[in-house]
Amino acid sequence: MSKMPMKRLSLLLLLQLTCHFSGGSCGKVLVWPVEFSHWMNIKTILDELVTRGHEVTVLISSASTIPNSSKPSTMKFETFPVSLTKSDYENFIERLLEEWTYAAKDSFWSYLSTVKSLFWEFFDTALSMCKDAVSNNKLMTELQESRFDILIADAVGPCGELLAELLKIPFVYSHYTSPGHIIERNSGRLHFPPSYVPVMISELSDRMTFMERVKNMFYTLYFDLFFTTYNEKKWNQFYSEVLGKTTTLSETMGKAEMWLIRSYWDISFPRPLLPNVEFVGGLHCKPAKPLPKEMEEFVQSSGENGIVVFSLGSMVSNMSEDRAEVIASAFAQIPQKVLWRYDGKKPDNLGPNTRLYKWLPQNDLLGHPKTKAFITHGGTNGIYEAIYHGVPMVGLPLFAEQPDNINRVKAKGAAVRLDLETMSKTDFLNALKQVINNPSYKRNAMWLSTIQRDQPIKPLDRAVFWIEFVMRHKGAKYLRPAAHNLTWFQYHSLDVIGFLLACVAAAVFVITKCFLFCCRKFAETGMKRKRE
Amino acid sequence: MSKMPMKRLSLLLLLQLTCHFSGGSCGKVLVWPVEFSHWMNIKTILDELVTRGHEVTVLISSASTIPNSSKPSTMKFETFPVSLTKSDYENFIERLLEEWTYAAKDSFWSYLSTVKSLFWEFFDTALSMCKDAVSNNKLMTELQESRFDILIADAVGPCGELLAELLKIPFVYSHYTSPGHIIERNSGRLHFPPSYVPVMISELSDRMTFMERVKNMFYTLYFDLFFTTYNEKKWNQFYSEVLGKTTTLSETMGKAEMWLIRSYWDISFPRPLLPNVEFVGGLHCKPAKPLPKEMEEFVQSSGENGIVVFSLGSMVSNMSEDRAEVIASAFAQIPQKVLWRYDGKKPDNLGPNTRLYKWLPQNDLLGHPKTKAFITHGGTNGIYEAIYHGVPMVGLPLFAEQPDNINRVKAKGAAVRLDLETMSKTDFLNALKQVINNPSYKRNAMWLSTIQRDQPIKPLDRAVFWIEFVMRHKGAKYLRPAAHNLTWFQYHSLDVIGFLLACVAAAVFVITKCFLFCCRKFAETGMKRKRE
Repeated sequence: MSKMPMKRLSLLLLLQLTCHFSGGSCGKVLVWPVEFSHWMNIKTILDELVTRGHEVTVLISSASTIPNSSKPSTMKFETFPVSLTKSDYENFIERLLEEWTYAAKDSFWSYLSTVKSLFWEFFDTALSMCKDAVSNNKLMTELQESRFDILIADAVGPCGELLAELLKIPFVYSHYTSPGHIIERNSGRLHFPPSYVPVMISELSDRMTFMERVKNMFYTLYFDLFFTTYNEKKWNQFYSEVLGKTTTLSETMGKAEMWLIRSYWDISFPRPLLPNVEFVGGLHCKPAKPLPKEMEEFVQSSGENGIVVFSLGSMVSNMSEDRAEVIASAFAQIPQKVLWRYDGKKPDNLGPNTRLYKWLPQNDLLGHPKTKAFITHGGTNGIYEAIYHGVPMVGLPLFAEQPDNINRVKAKGAAVRLDLETMSKTDFLNALKQVINNPSYKRNAMWLSTIQRDQPIKPLDRAVFWIEFVMRHKGAKYLRPAAHNLTWFQYHSLDVIGFLLACVAAAVFVITKCFLFCCRKFAETGMKRKRE
Repeated sequence: MSKMPMKRLSLLLLLQLTCHFSGGSCGKVLVWPVEFSHWMNIKTILDELVTRGHEVTVLISSASTIPNSSKPSTMKFETFPVSLTKSDYENFIERLLEEWTYAAKDSFWSYLSTVKSLFWEFFDTALSMCKDAVSNNKLMTELQESRFDILIADAVGPCGELLAELLKIPFVYSHYTSPGHIIERNSGRLHFPPSYVPVMISELSDRMTFMERVKNMFYTLYFDLFFTTYNEKKWNQFYSEVLGKTTTLSETMGKAEMWLIRSYWDISFPRPLLPNVEFVGGLHCKPAKPLPKEMEEFVQSSGENGIVVFSLGSMVSNMSEDRAEVIASAFAQIPQKVLWRYDGKKPDNLGPNTRLYKWLPQNDLLGHPKTKAFITHGGTNGIYEAIYHGVPMVGLPLFAEQPDNINRVKAKGAAVRLDLETMSKTDFLNALKQVINNPSYKRNAMWLSTIQRDQPIKPLDRAVFWIEFVMRHKGAKYLRPAAHNLTWFQYHSLDVIGFLLACVAAAVFVITKCFLFCCRKFAETGMKRKRE
């Protein structure tokens, strides 16, 4: 028997014990993540998997922007080289988000067209990285030899499903949403009725006026018919080449064993779903930890009035000076103390009640009993933390799903929405006063918190359960809808409808012919009789 | 303070403790059950509610067939008088089931038409009982004064939702399925694609040939367009009268907070669902208890060959002599010991390896390690017990959902289906040998058992969680799809489609007019020039 250091041996024993106690089997997990806030969410699942004794390997490109501080030593990070440099990638993403933020002010069609081209650009870069990974023989051999039990991928960044196919292992998606639900449709072709399911990026609610329903129908048709066509062609061709068979990106994505959706019915409007879809939104939420001493003192100094927390998320820590001044001067007029995550020039109008921070322990602040309101860009992670702690919000959405998120919380009566670029000081002040002083906002936020917390089993446990289930049983095909086996015209029963219409047409034809034949016979007999 | 006997006081304290420990609030539960096997399933939920300290009152008619032995003293049974006698009701149900069993041999259309008239007859009787309950002032006053927190009803027997509306309390359904899914559609108007979701009573699977899809489309259209029209009219009128507003049965049923479906993805084919629908099939399943001594000895005497369990369910304990002889003589030829639930004349061909019983501890037998096969009529409760214990089946379906149930287990490779009336001794013998000796049946049955057992939380706990949730929060409206607020043409976006078509038509009209006008102008100019 080879020698093994005592420490390593006891660690292994501990891992096996954890596995045993968690009820699952210890497994090897490969991860194809998407970065930024997506990484933060999937990391919560990976941390839990590590705690339960599973071995986690995260595949990242050499251009990855994941900071080292966010790479736990309990996981293995396998880096593969790509042609793009880290700074190129960062600049690229920054430009994409800036354009998206800017496009939000455009007209309906121009906005959609910009979003479409941004998506294609993003997917083109993802495709180039995917090619770099798959064509890397050393990497692929290493992965093959590692014999992973499962691959976890973020559905918004394709390639994971291709790797899983190549490695012949089952895979599970983490996903939030996509414009027109085009990505999640791969879970089983489910089409949502446009009459009450608002298309993501439409910013509509589930209770629409007639004209809103017309708008939603436009969005539905647009995304169904025009959105992915061109870009998917490239992916389909690439996947077919690599897998050596004619296939598509959709078909490959459709093989996912389970879709873990980072949403729940607290902010999502009830809509149809499939059994292979599990809503685990808020899985990263947890009770607040104590604040750093200086911060706690500042918070406590707010007295009865409490505090306001302001952050535009992990990707935006800056804004134009003009906007910062408007916001700072509004803050100066409220009795609350304000904690503002801001990395720009200190505004001249900054009141003594406001403190700037380069980073905030957001969850700990939102869970603090003195917190009265949260000013947010509407990112899903932040929204869920506020919901978990029952904090009403003022939303200043910028891009992606943020406007929809804010609109949803607004529809549930727990937020006021403003436009960061155009709002006046008075608008901002009124919105703040409204969510702080009108008790309905707090009440509604507390109800969302109740929905989030009062579940039969915690979202994180559900997510981990399904990942372990797939590892235990090498899949969960029994949840896979048979819709996957049908072509699109079969799925919509177009062949059956065509056949039935043809039958009706044939029947009408035969009956008409018979009728005409009888009429003619009758007429002929009549003529004959007349002649006789 | 009034005197209270010590025993009663400590019981109350115990109940409060249980409530506290169960995490829920102690509540008062009113139940509007459907009898027979439906009662057995809902009773499992009620027993659990009682264990958790809730007060359960079951409303039953004076014609109720629920035997006293099945009425736990831990629940209150409130009986209200109805015009029908118990024996009339028993005879009525017996005739209904007999006609349904017989109709199953008829042709497609005649079968559907018989089922339709049987449903209407059943619903007419239910309506008469409902009228007797609602017009009973004493009963209604008593119920009003009892201040219940929730009503639990079986969706196949209407009236519960009306009572809940009258008592102004939230309600939850227990439900399995209905022909064409017409009842469960009330959970939120969800229409299933007929291309891969087989209509219940069609006996199809989720993988259909072209002609099967045509058949399924026929069923879908039939149930959508013709099935409930006449009968619902009576209910709609009655509900409108009682509630003093124009309403319908569907609208009132649509107010259910939650639908607890007595199925799961082990036998149900994956299909779309809504967030207010929870699949809790198999909630009554539990580990086997030891058998009575005599039975255990008989079972043990089977040695390596094991035993076969045969029961046609709680409603059928008899069959024609001819059929009994065929079955008995087949049993006599197998090496297994057979335990047969049978109340008829002892067959002449009965082998020494077969014993007849008026009643069988079915779950304990199915959970016995010696059990090799289960011969069943395909009732949902029995099927789930066999699945839970991983026992392959021979199905002899008679009526209602039984043929579909058997076909589903057959599609999953864990059953062989035969026709009780027409099968020969050889057919039966071959089927038995197949499920016992071909290991694939056992393997598939064990996989179904794994699916059933390996869930994040047990079905019974999920069912009780949602009932307690509704009591804690006086509803679960956040799970209610906004589809309920739309008319049928709004739901299907027919108004939007009409509007868009009208817009297109108007645009075409204007463009054509402009084009014609230009042409005319052009022609006139040409003519003018020619003239000049």
